[in-house]
Amino acid sequence: MSERVTLKQVAAKAGISYQTVSKVLNGSNQVARETAERILSAARELGYRPNTMARNLRSQRSWMIGYSWIPTPPNQVNHILDLFLTSMVQEAEAAGYHLLPFPYQEGEEQVETYREMIDSGRVDGFVLSSVEYDDPRIQFLLSRQFPFVAFGRSNPEIDFPYVDIDGGAGMRMTVDYLIKKGHRRIAVLAWPENSRVGNDRMGGFFEALNNAALSIPTEWVMRGEGTYEFGLKSGLHLLSTSPDQRPTAIVTLNDTQAIGAMVAAHELNLTVGSDVDVIGFDDAPMSQYLYPPLSSIRQPIREAGRLCVEQLIKLMEGESLIERQILLNPKLIIRASA
Amino acid sequence: MSERVTLKQVAAKAGISYQTVSKVLNGSNQVARETAERILSAARELGYRPNTMARNLRSQRSWMIGYSWIPTPPNQVNHILDLFLTSMVQEAEAAGYHLLPFPYQEGEEQVETYREMIDSGRVDGFVLSSVEYDDPRIQFLLSRQFPFVAFGRSNPEIDFPYVDIDGGAGMRMTVDYLIKKGHRRIAVLAWPENSRVGNDRMGGFFEALNNAALSIPTEWVMRGEGTYEFGLKSGLHLLSTSPDQRPTAIVTLNDTQAIGAMVAAHELNLTVGSDVDVIGFDDAPMSQYLYPPLSSIRQPIREAGRLCVEQLIKLMEGESLIERQILLNPKLIIRASA
Repeated sequence: MSERVTLKQVAAKAGISYQTVSKVLNGSNQVARETAERILSAARELGYRPNTMARNLRSQRSWMIGYSWIPTPPNQVNHILDLFLTSMVQEAEAAGYHLLPFPYQEGEEQVETYREMIDSGRVDGFVLSSVEYDDPRIQFLLSRQFPFVAFGRSNPEIDFPYVDIDGGAGMRMTVDYLIKKGHRRIAVLAWPENSRVGNDRMGGFFEALNNAALSIPTEWVMRGEGTYEFGLKSGLHLLSTSPDQRPTAIVTLNDTQAIGAMVAAHELNLTVGSDVDVIGFDDAPMSQYLYPPLSSIRQPIREAGRLCVEQLIKLMEGESLIERQILLNPKLIIRASA
Repeated sequence: MSERVTLKQVAAKAGISYQTVSKVLNGSNQVARETAERILSAARELGYRPNTMARNLRSQRSWMIGYSWIPTPPNQVNHILDLFLTSMVQEAEAAGYHLLPFPYQEGEEQVETYREMIDSGRVDGFVLSSVEYDDPRIQFLLSRQFPFVAFGRSNPEIDFPYVDIDGGAGMRMTVDYLIKKGHRRIAVLAWPENSRVGNDRMGGFFEALNNAALSIPTEWVMRGEGTYEFGLKSGLHLLSTSPDQRPTAIVTLNDTQAIGAMVAAHELNLTVGSDVDVIGFDDAPMSQYLYPPLSSIRQPIREAGRLCVEQLIKLMEGESLIERQILLNPKLIIRASA
């Protein structure tokens, strides 16, 4: 179907045997220089391009990086996918690699998918995302000594290469900012205690309170899903008490929870930004258009994607990493909600 | 690095020569049945898996589908990428194909990238998105007779396989709905006249007005970018006249424009949903959390992604398509903004 120039055509044009042409175009230097030059010039004129599959088979490499992600539930949006993928694809391409996205599987199936990708020779390495505690992919890939870089941390006792964003630092910035503004009663909408990312962020929350010698009632740490519904319900619960009893600020682990909390405030006739401050996490692109515009933590996603691939390429090419674990700092974006 | 079982190991286990093992595992049937069975059983016991690269080289196919998309500018979000990619990856995987995302290039570079992907044997076909008038990729791929399916239409006189969402039908639904609610003064925020997708949607807008024998002042068709800023500016311009002169409804070609128009109404102390109705397009996941929640047109993205790959696989496997051009219907989602 494609009009690919063949070795045979190059051989005919150069007037040299197929075997010799094949040797030269496959990189052998056991051919007289003059002959090699005649072949290369014929190849150039005809627009010959080496066949990727043949090159890969010779090198026993696929030049592919496997990547899989959890599809977002309906009514939610993966704010970072475009940026993360684009930065990975560009970084990979610049080094002659391509990205191979494959479907995300739950549970036991998950490791099987990774095993199949390795055993069929489809990929030379992986970037992992949505990393959790006791992530079975990490143990499996370590035991296979197969190159990978995780976007995210797992159990602290397991040593593996990762790039992550310091969510704890993000929460510290948020709480420090609120304390500086005079807040002393700060509530938080958090995720369940088995969330690796959630616990990292909550560590920063408590650290900032401790540093300021502040404590809050345990019931002001509300744990649930990262949904609008949980944000709304928790916001109504927290804000329905008397003005001198209720929190003066609510921080959340994502923007969707924060939106729920802001709507709760509206419903109770409280003004967000004066009666109660709200700060989210993620800086989802629509957060600036909310009413009022939402303050939030912005993560350096492009840099994270680039670094995951940069580190992985070093591993795939047998280099050792100078920094095996990289933590990037997020940024607090202040808008009218706080 | 990987613990792949080799043909040599299978040969040792079966006690049969490497050459014969290679023949059998590469699908030859020129080997005695009993011998073949001994080899296959040894291969199974050892967990031998065929090498993808070798298989690809034999079949001269890469089993890959190329896909490239325009990265979203900062402060915007690609609402459909996750759904579109996930549905394509799943559909491809089910048929033994994988997706190969590659970086988007502007202008002349664009066709060169596609040429390079074909000539290096990296992909067996493409899914195109962000299709425009006179799209150079379409002419190039048609001239190369290389399999592709476009997500979107181009010049009507060029015949090529596509899957698209009927944006004109979406706008007709929107305008019909507003007319039924009693609106007679409907303005629209549109894109520049060289936008293929924009013109398709605007066709539906004018058709619905014509069907109701309504006409609107030409200055109520405002053309500009799909941004918040353009929506805000246009909204202020349209709504700053006296109540009996200004439009009673504004429809837009995306949700970001609609958000700008809603903020313009707030700034002029008009209530969206009573003083002026606003309806967007895209049904971005955060639209439901806006104040008030935004009515919008929802596109069947998952179905579009699935169909693009389903059609492409038929083409790559040499089948002819029963329907070469497929148009899917969007859906109007009504919320408090209209």
